[in-house]
Amino acid sequence: MRILALSGSLRAASINSAFCRATARLAPANVHVEVLSGLGNIPAFNQDLEPSPPSAVQSLRAAIHGATALVIASPEYAHGVSGVMKNALDWLVSYEGTVGKPIALVNTSGRAHHAYDALREVLTTMSTDIVATASVTLPLLGTCTTEQEMVSSPHVSRAIRGMIEALVLHVAGPSAPLVNFPIA
Amino acid sequence: MRILALSGSLRAASINSAFCRATARLAPANVHVEVLSGLGNIPAFNQDLEPSPPSAVQSLRAAIHGATALVIASPEYAHGVSGVMKNALDWLVSYEGTVGKPIALVNTSGRAHHAYDALREVLTTMSTDIVATASVTLPLLGTCTTEQEMVSSPHVSRAIRGMIEALVLHVAGPSAPLVNFPIA
Repeated sequence: MRILALSGSLRAASINSAFCRATARLAPANVHVEVLSGLGNIPAFNQDLEPSPPSAVQSLRAAIHGATALVIASPEYAHGVSGVMKNALDWLVSYEGTVGKPIALVNTSGRAHHAYDALREVLTTMSTDIVATASVTLPLLGTCTTEQEMVSSPHVSRAIRGMIEALVLHVAGPSAPLVNFPIA
Repeated sequence: MRILALSGSLRAASINSAFCRATARLAPANVHVEVLSGLGNIPAFNQDLEPSPPSAVQSLRAAIHGATALVIASPEYAHGVSGVMKNALDWLVSYEGTVGKPIALVNTSGRAHHAYDALREVLTTMSTDIVATASVTLPLLGTCTTEQEMVSSPHVSRAIRGMIEALVLHVAGPSAPLVNFPIA
């Protein structure tokens, strides 16, 4: 099982990026989490370039193709989706590799909802598979903002492990045997 | 009066870009419309770079500072705001020059509304001044898609002139004398 985690913020101290890294650290041994760091290098979306996408876009698509599921954690800027995240998604709209891809959509702010709702609408329109049981809202903003704090917090680390477990169970399907998942 | 027109699409045959160019052609002599072409060069937004923004961002801010009003015409991708447009706006959230800036928010599709509604929410949150009388929805998608068709269409050219007139009247304020505006 391979999970690709994407943060919609490029800020070094980004809560969403910290969440992605904490997810990688808390994953059990049989789940590999890769944190994608290259969203800032994705060129501005231009439909005219679709026939021969820029190499950064090809790398993004390859990373998504190789992932069993995605974790998307993205900030809200001025009540809207981060442009960095939406620009990356714009390059994926016509990419068949995102169709049906299981996604844990994460909201790291308990107060913000505009961007989260808008992302949900976009990802639904793109025919991805938003996994409800793995899509969590955690009020980390202002309370638990670093990777270390998230890993150390019993509440947050449990929520992250639960998110991963929900993705694993979803991918395995309803008829799969119960996963021997380490309990925190 | 100087109007800066921004298109959220980089596609050469973009309807929104054609709308911006048609606006420039149809403007009366006393209104200068500049069509901004550099949104594709704006780097991915990174809050850490705010203290010393990239030169393309400085140019964008200077263009907005020099404009009396903006025209924003942006496409909808997967029920969301174009990432190109939102990334540019993310760089403007902390820029005081956008506060109170009069904006004609244009929807060139009669069917799409998600991105338009989301842009309205973002621009309102940014404390811009969305001018209701100048913010038009024109069902150009599939019917009138090139600059030449827009300029030649009596209906569309009248709508564009009306948009400019509404911006001019709004900027002049309620106590200003009636503008001697050429009627198409």
